Amino acid sequence: MVGGGQLARMTHEAGIPLGIKFKLLSDTPQDSAAQTVNDVVVGDYRDLETLRRFAEGCDVITFDHEHVPTEHLRALEADGVVVRPGPDALIHAHDKGVMRARLTAIGVPCPRHRIVEDPADVAAFAAETAETAETAGSGGSGGAGQEAAEGGKAGWPVVLKTVRGGYDGKGVWVVRDETEAAEPFHAGVPVLAEEKVAFTRELAANVVRSPHGQAVAYPVVESIQVSGVCNEVIAPAPGLSEALSGEAQRIALTIAKELGVVGHLAVELFETADGRILVNELAMRPHNSGHWTQDGAVTSQFANHLRAVLDLPLGDPRPRVRWTVMANVLGGDYPDMYYGYLHCMARDPALKIHMYGKDVKPGRKVGHVNTYGDDLDEVRARARHAADYLRGTITE
Amino acid sequence: MVGGGQLARMTHEAGIPLGIKFKLLSDTPQDSAAQTVNDVVVGDYRDLETLRRFAEGCDVITFDHEHVPTEHLRALEADGVVVRPGPDALIHAHDKGVMRARLTAIGVPCPRHRIVEDPADVAAFAAETAETAETAGSGGSGGAGQEAAEGGKAGWPVVLKTVRGGYDGKGVWVVRDETEAAEPFHAGVPVLAEEKVAFTRELAANVVRSPHGQAVAYPVVESIQVSGVCNEVIAPAPGLSEALSGEAQRIALTIAKELGVVGHLAVELFETADGRILVNELAMRPHNSGHWTQDGAVTSQFANHLRAVLDLPLGDPRPRVRWTVMANVLGGDYPDMYYGYLHCMARDPALKIHMYGKDVKPGRKVGHVNTYGDDLDEVRARARHAADYLRGTITE
Repeated sequence: MVGGGQLARMTHEAGIPLGIKFKLLSDTPQDSAAQTVNDVVVGDYRDLETLRRFAEGCDVITFDHEHVPTEHLRALEADGVVVRPGPDALIHAHDKGVMRARLTAIGVPCPRHRIVEDPADVAAFAAETAETAETAGSGGSGGAGQEAAEGGKAGWPVVLKTVRGGYDGKGVWVVRDETEAAEPFHAGVPVLAEEKVAFTRELAANVVRSPHGQAVAYPVVESIQVSGVCNEVIAPAPGLSEALSGEAQRIALTIAKELGVVGHLAVELFETADGRILVNELAMRPHNSGHWTQDGAVTSQFANHLRAVLDLPLGDPRPRVRWTVMANVLGGDYPDMYYGYLHCMARDPALKIHMYGKDVKPGRKVGHVNTYGDDLDEVRARARHAADYLRGTITE
Repeated sequence: MVGGGQLARMTHEAGIPLGIKFKLLSDTPQDSAAQTVNDVVVGDYRDLETLRRFAEGCDVITFDHEHVPTEHLRALEADGVVVRPGPDALIHAHDKGVMRARLTAIGVPCPRHRIVEDPADVAAFAAETAETAETAGSGGSGGAGQEAAEGGKAGWPVVLKTVRGGYDGKGVWVVRDETEAAEPFHAGVPVLAEEKVAFTRELAANVVRSPHGQAVAYPVVESIQVSGVCNEVIAPAPGLSEALSGEAQRIALTIAKELGVVGHLAVELFETADGRILVNELAMRPHNSGHWTQDGAVTSQFANHLRAVLDLPLGDPRPRVRWTVMANVLGGDYPDMYYGYLHCMARDPALKIHMYGKDVKPGRKVGHVNTYGDDLDEVRARARHAADYLRGTITE
């Protein structure tokens, strides 16, 4: 696995019972996964020769993140290395412009969007979406994607994203006018404009797909974001209609199939007040919105990602219990979490703690907790309490 | 953790989410746990200086097996090393003679037993137990333990055990007469004679105890042995009365407290036709009879063993589901289990496979599977099928 973050750490953990030999390419020996994996190569994933040496002796290589340059992945494939997901799929997680164009082409509902050239072009986009809000379906080729052009009420503010390199709210701006629209262009990377969707909540549809085409769909979850960072996930999404849940799963399965995804695919979605679902982001790897599966599903996203990339039959994605809640643990003011452990473990013996071995920095994701049970309010309160206590924002 | 077997492998795995730094002392770099742990010292646990160097920088040391010499553990403690469980507890798992004397002293029911000197003394033991079978409570100090002397029908055959070094049926003989009784004495180790208990089935009561005295009890399980090797575990033990279940848990908790056990304690038990429970063996570490907890309990035995030895509050030991069945996977004629994976995973997507990374040798424990559900017959059949298929004794 390329990338030494917590996703690699938890994927390695999930591979131990399957007897899977796991080799890691990590930026540093201190990275989250490098602390627990016993076969670690330290090196730069942006360097093709490093990737080539790493790939020697691997049956398959897969990824903790989507930042490996696409041309390197193509070079590895040309060498005969098995890359899963492959570059033709990963480009859609790597480049938001390519992703939006492709999803629109295959009929998947997205926010209206187009690549913008400069702040004046952003203003033009805002005007276009404000107009088309009244006249659904009027978007043309290269214009704002027409699939979602029925919700109305776009215009300013506009969401701007650099097409590459963003994550957890980085590389994303919500701008209110042409002046504010200047900043995203400073990076010199193409910028994608998207309408700011008036969503009621965020959902995620997670699926896993094998090279031979088997696919499984996890229950659709609700993802609660704070400042662009996932804070809490509720599985399944409370009160989601069977129709929308089915549509969300079908969208994710369609994307996985049409884009040739192998492994875990997370499709982040907006649910709108008028009962529609729009695709926000894609991730072709285990994802924060699937961490609940470690304790709440028969087979975790990590185990199923490994099974998929190794072309083993996939595991049962069904939930084991009525409700599972995941809450991210962010770093607070205390570098040592030991005292938090004592309190949280004693208070809630059924709490499931997953820490990443990262140095605590304020606001940094350093772990997550899972709780499960039959009473959603109680399950949420337990997860919330543990996450807040470990962070240090509450002390009892 | 001292010892590189599968118990260390699975304990390490359970420690990853808790962010526990895990260091391993392994006989070879190929041992089961040495394949997955990233901080491995290769060395001989029988060498005190090796143990001393290993213990440097460890907050606590614990064990994958009970073979570390007691005098070495005492020397480590004298050095200031925190050893859990400590030598005063571990001696009872290390030496069956000490264990029997101590359990009898604290009123825990055991098979009648005593240390025997030679084959003639075994014959004397057989005669004593045949007599006392008729006259309950007549055993004296140094004679066959009286606690169990009410079941009747002892005499020949007699069970002989070397007091140290046995496991999985090794170091145990069932002898029918004085001639057969000669072999166990060849090793030069003291020999313990025990009555052959007419048991209806074997149970195990697993508990975990912390240094500060917190303890949790897992549901009592049925353990099905084949040729002295655990083959299958059913959790909870089907049809076990609440009274006997409670008694078994109380016995295990009493042993843990009285012997000062820290960590996981497995108490293997005989259930007799006349409704009694007798202690067979003790293990002060994670144990085969607790493997079901990985998928069937809120907190696994491995996680709770770590929490105990680190004096963290213990996790909830309750079952997550009505029935969980564990079946050991023994090595068969096929060195490569990959094709077995394809079939078993496709046939039963909810199957939980736990392999140890060991070379396949006929009859060697190389892994286990867990299944769970509401219908015991179906859950057992699934576990049995997968274990037999992976071994190669069935092909469809």
